[in-house]
Amino acid sequence: MIMPKASTGFQSNSWMIVETQSVRFDSLALDCGVVLSPVDVAYETYGELNRNKSNAVLIAHAFSGDAHAAGISKEDGRPGWWDNMIGPGRAFDTEKYFVICSNVLGGCRGTTGPSSVNPVTGRPYAMTFPMITISDMVRLQKKLIDHLGIPRLLAVAGGSMGGMQVLEWAVRYPDSLCAAFPIATTARHSAQQIAFNEVGRQAIMADPDWQGGNYYGGKLPARGLSVARMVGHITYMSDQSMKEKFGRRFRSKEGESFHFNDVFEVESYLRYRGSQFVDRFDANSYLYITKAMDIFDLAQGYGTLAAALERAKCRFLVISFTSDWLYPTYQSLEIVSALRSRNRDVAYCELSSNYGHDAFLVEVGEQAELVRGFLAATYREVA
Amino acid sequence: MIMPKASTGFQSNSWMIVETQSVRFDSLALDCGVVLSPVDVAYETYGELNRNKSNAVLIAHAFSGDAHAAGISKEDGRPGWWDNMIGPGRAFDTEKYFVICSNVLGGCRGTTGPSSVNPVTGRPYAMTFPMITISDMVRLQKKLIDHLGIPRLLAVAGGSMGGMQVLEWAVRYPDSLCAAFPIATTARHSAQQIAFNEVGRQAIMADPDWQGGNYYGGKLPARGLSVARMVGHITYMSDQSMKEKFGRRFRSKEGESFHFNDVFEVESYLRYRGSQFVDRFDANSYLYITKAMDIFDLAQGYGTLAAALERAKCRFLVISFTSDWLYPTYQSLEIVSALRSRNRDVAYCELSSNYGHDAFLVEVGEQAELVRGFLAATYREVA
Repeated sequence: MIMPKASTGFQSNSWMIVETQSVRFDSLALDCGVVLSPVDVAYETYGELNRNKSNAVLIAHAFSGDAHAAGISKEDGRPGWWDNMIGPGRAFDTEKYFVICSNVLGGCRGTTGPSSVNPVTGRPYAMTFPMITISDMVRLQKKLIDHLGIPRLLAVAGGSMGGMQVLEWAVRYPDSLCAAFPIATTARHSAQQIAFNEVGRQAIMADPDWQGGNYYGGKLPARGLSVARMVGHITYMSDQSMKEKFGRRFRSKEGESFHFNDVFEVESYLRYRGSQFVDRFDANSYLYITKAMDIFDLAQGYGTLAAALERAKCRFLVISFTSDWLYPTYQSLEIVSALRSRNRDVAYCELSSNYGHDAFLVEVGEQAELVRGFLAATYREVA
Repeated sequence: MIMPKASTGFQSNSWMIVETQSVRFDSLALDCGVVLSPVDVAYETYGELNRNKSNAVLIAHAFSGDAHAAGISKEDGRPGWWDNMIGPGRAFDTEKYFVICSNVLGGCRGTTGPSSVNPVTGRPYAMTFPMITISDMVRLQKKLIDHLGIPRLLAVAGGSMGGMQVLEWAVRYPDSLCAAFPIATTARHSAQQIAFNEVGRQAIMADPDWQGGNYYGGKLPARGLSVARMVGHITYMSDQSMKEKFGRRFRSKEGESFHFNDVFEVESYLRYRGSQFVDRFDANSYLYITKAMDIFDLAQGYGTLAAALERAKCRFLVISFTSDWLYPTYQSLEIVSALRSRNRDVAYCELSSNYGHDAFLVEVGEQAELVRGFLAATYREVA
């Protein structure tokens, strides 16, 4: 087992150079009954854990995210996916809090997933990787938190699939967190959300290069994965944000007659984003993680959502965005209603944004202020 | 040239056995500059043309529709796609009106399209088929109407892409129709609408069996076309209608543990509809027709939408549906505003429905009453 440093973050004013670390656990028992062994977890930390270990915040990433949530990657120079929310002076203020983010189980960015080598066969798991759930992802995060010697998290926060993990934390480990921030998320996928994920999966599996998942070392199912990502991108944006970003602008020169291969800017953007995704994401991880999202149902085993959330002891700040049609406000309100029906401590805000589901990543002004205040109040109470 | 009968409809109470007819025109000059020759048009008619030829209504079909709009097909026993709107006593009452519907240019259901044989080469056009526009489709419909000896249509009606054709008729042939019914449509696609179409096209072209479009006589690009159709289906329904139809119902037996290949009902439905589509639709037609929709912009050549619609002389009944997020109400309101700004005769209704874009096809109660009344009033004025 590799012992983690308390912090990987070198802080200078408003930026940090960070390095992803890794820890290996002997095994992880999964919901499906399989025991996965061993399990690596890639993670990053920012800031310093205080003496009484009361300032730790776990960040859970969304579907295609990774452990690199903040700072500048030492490896490739890229900023983290929530760098506008995490850092010195930011909402998750790394001068006050010790922030942790790990790549999810089933992922392809350092944590064990379908592309990892199965020690029994010496070959990548591919589609022999066991079924995983959001609960399994959270169970692995709990191992990491235990490993870091943190008895109780100040908060768990995340948007989209990250928000599902936040909800799961609150219900499965009620004594292990003080505050939960489920953002732009849901307690279970609707038929429409399942349908969009299924289109992505079918696009991947329709690609002959997918080869039943056994494409490692060969040609990647790039076309299928690219189409899947294109669908995803449309659902992450709003009608309005696409209009503002692309409108009906055309890539041909003014006055030229139209040819079949001429494209609107929105088309070339989607093609570019689709093809770019292939370089950083594994198609089988796409299948496993989207399936985990689809089968996630916080109420399962408890009868109702309210009965599930009754187990929670933490405070909640639930956030949704007006133009988010993928994880619409009504799904956040279901969580809020269930919490209120069991007299749980919950604040809720619907923030105005044109950015659709992407809002929690890109338009963070109001969200940052809400999180900052809620987190500080929680810290004052427990510190 | 095959001479059409005035009516193909055998009427008995509330049903009709109908047969698709065909007419061949020597040539059609297209917007792209190419002259297509010859051009076949598949069409059906229902009811009888009256003596002064003042009771003819043209129905324009949506993206994947065909000429079989009403009655029972003599060929395969299927009802027409708008059979709930067209027939004896229905909104488009075939006891009063002579109703015509033709398959669009570029289609694959009897009208000349990419799957038609190019007489010069003796092989299907495939991707050598010229670029087509909504205006080209309408120009071909005008030829059919002239051929049928109808000097002026009582009305042109259609939903979705059919509505685009209705708008084009009103602007291009202002003296040739008395009433226009653009339903669940737009004067131009938004970036989001283009994006969804582009995903479908990319899914088709990513299928190696597409072969650059030269798949005729060989293996069809079934996987790509199926994925494209799945995306389409999601956009045709609403979040609410998917919830009501499928919810999170699962196809496994109660108590069985979850396996990767187990599916939610919504998934198996989409897969089924996707695979079914392959049997009746041509992948290259998908490419050409969606592109025609995307490049359609009624304002083009006129500066503004209002300036384009100022050419229209007919009355308009514009209809949209509350849960239609693919062709949202704001797009219908743009048409209504433009018409009103030029003092054109326009009525507008937003109908309440949970069925999303499909509402104009499946929840036709209120729509039928609106159309019936508007059509009767128009007929009283001109008859």
